[in-house]
Amino acid sequence: MKFDVFSLIPQVFAGYLGCSILNKAIENGLISVDVHDIRDWAEGKHHITDEPPYGGGGGMVMKPDPVFAAVESVVGTPPECPVILLTPQGRIFTQQDAQKFAEYPRLALICGRYEGFDERIREHLVTDEISIGDYVLTGGELPALILIDAISRNLNGVLGDPDGAFDDSHASYLLEYPHYTRPPEFRGWTVPEVLLSGNHAKINEWRRQQSLLRTAQRRPDLLKKAELSVKDLKFLREQGFDTGETENPR
Amino acid sequence: MKFDVFSLIPQVFAGYLGCSILNKAIENGLISVDVHDIRDWAEGKHHITDEPPYGGGGGMVMKPDPVFAAVESVVGTPPECPVILLTPQGRIFTQQDAQKFAEYPRLALICGRYEGFDERIREHLVTDEISIGDYVLTGGELPALILIDAISRNLNGVLGDPDGAFDDSHASYLLEYPHYTRPPEFRGWTVPEVLLSGNHAKINEWRRQQSLLRTAQRRPDLLKKAELSVKDLKFLREQGFDTGETENPR
Repeated sequence: MKFDVFSLIPQVFAGYLGCSILNKAIENGLISVDVHDIRDWAEGKHHITDEPPYGGGGGMVMKPDPVFAAVESVVGTPPECPVILLTPQGRIFTQQDAQKFAEYPRLALICGRYEGFDERIREHLVTDEISIGDYVLTGGELPALILIDAISRNLNGVLGDPDGAFDDSHASYLLEYPHYTRPPEFRGWTVPEVLLSGNHAKINEWRRQQSLLRTAQRRPDLLKKAELSVKDLKFLREQGFDTGETENPR
Repeated sequence: MKFDVFSLIPQVFAGYLGCSILNKAIENGLISVDVHDIRDWAEGKHHITDEPPYGGGGGMVMKPDPVFAAVESVVGTPPECPVILLTPQGRIFTQQDAQKFAEYPRLALICGRYEGFDERIREHLVTDEISIGDYVLTGGELPALILIDAISRNLNGVLGDPDGAFDDSHASYLLEYPHYTRPPEFRGWTVPEVLLSGNHAKINEWRRQQSLLRTAQRRPDLLKKAELSVKDLKFLREQGFDTGETENPR
């Protein structure tokens, strides 16, 4: 899978991409990431990429022409792949998006700086506007790295363990159960006995219940989307949680 | 403001921190970021930081002892500042958290890798568990950078324009209005006439309406939290939006 990233500060990407699982995926030819400097497509002696907004107000706005020229010269006119704008005005990115985008052979990611983008870029060039969350950032570079990371994890071979991506929080709309490792006692705090019992049926039941409890306590909004068994629903009711609104009982 | 970051891959941070507004904030002494390698506090010849989970299952779990030792030796026993664990199981980070955390002189951020953390770290060391969104990532390093970026923007002097942080999407629970800059016509697509009119009362009204419309269309969940005037509510009703559930009319 190929990522083409368009940015005004292309030098920020190498540090993260050079590490850990993403670096391995690049070395193994599973993904490639080309970072393009939008400024290279800005015309004139000063390669201007931004100007003040029409109508006044603070900040600078990314001009349409260098962004169209950069994206179209790299991924085609019209673009032959999804063109994703990272913006706080986009729809909120989820694990389900990460899985869906992983099905494309190529993605273009546009990172903004300054006040924002000329509206014509949104209307006539991009296919998806994505926000990684309800907070304000300096630019789209970290969000682009977030997408590359979250999407790549869903590709065959990127994670060592083929089931890894599906066990995690959010793949199933349930938060993970608590993990414990050695030492068995640390400062007087011990590991739950069931985990030391060797009884795998009991361990699996405990983990499922902990996962349900944690999701019910911390993220009742997620719990409504999870696929819950009759046994799950019974357990949650016994623990005092209202399961009336669960969307997918089975 | 001081950030102490604890990670197993400390080398990923320099690339992003060396750029743009964050670099300027560091050079101007407004923020400092110290990245600590958790492995330096792992004992034994092999400096082991993770082990398989009790009870079986895939993945590796971060051991409690090196994480406690690292955090406590840097920020005190007990820690004298909030200790934030970046984890998909945490509460979802928002702009309001970014503003709140900006009031502390110091924050500790713990980044995980592998399957997760030993539960005793969550229970007895960290004060906040934060998730940047409902998607699965390779580790907590990008989320830590997201927090540093979003929090630092709220500190005096970090942004050139003192009003910058408050104009943005999410600071007011309204998405931004569309921006336009030169050229006035690009491929036949023109700038809305009102923005060229020079009539600032009309421009402000248009922008407010566009901001309301965009939020109503894309993020009705945000609109419910926004402070809306009687005029705003009237406009939205005229556009066919149900404003019955708005929480903060004024």
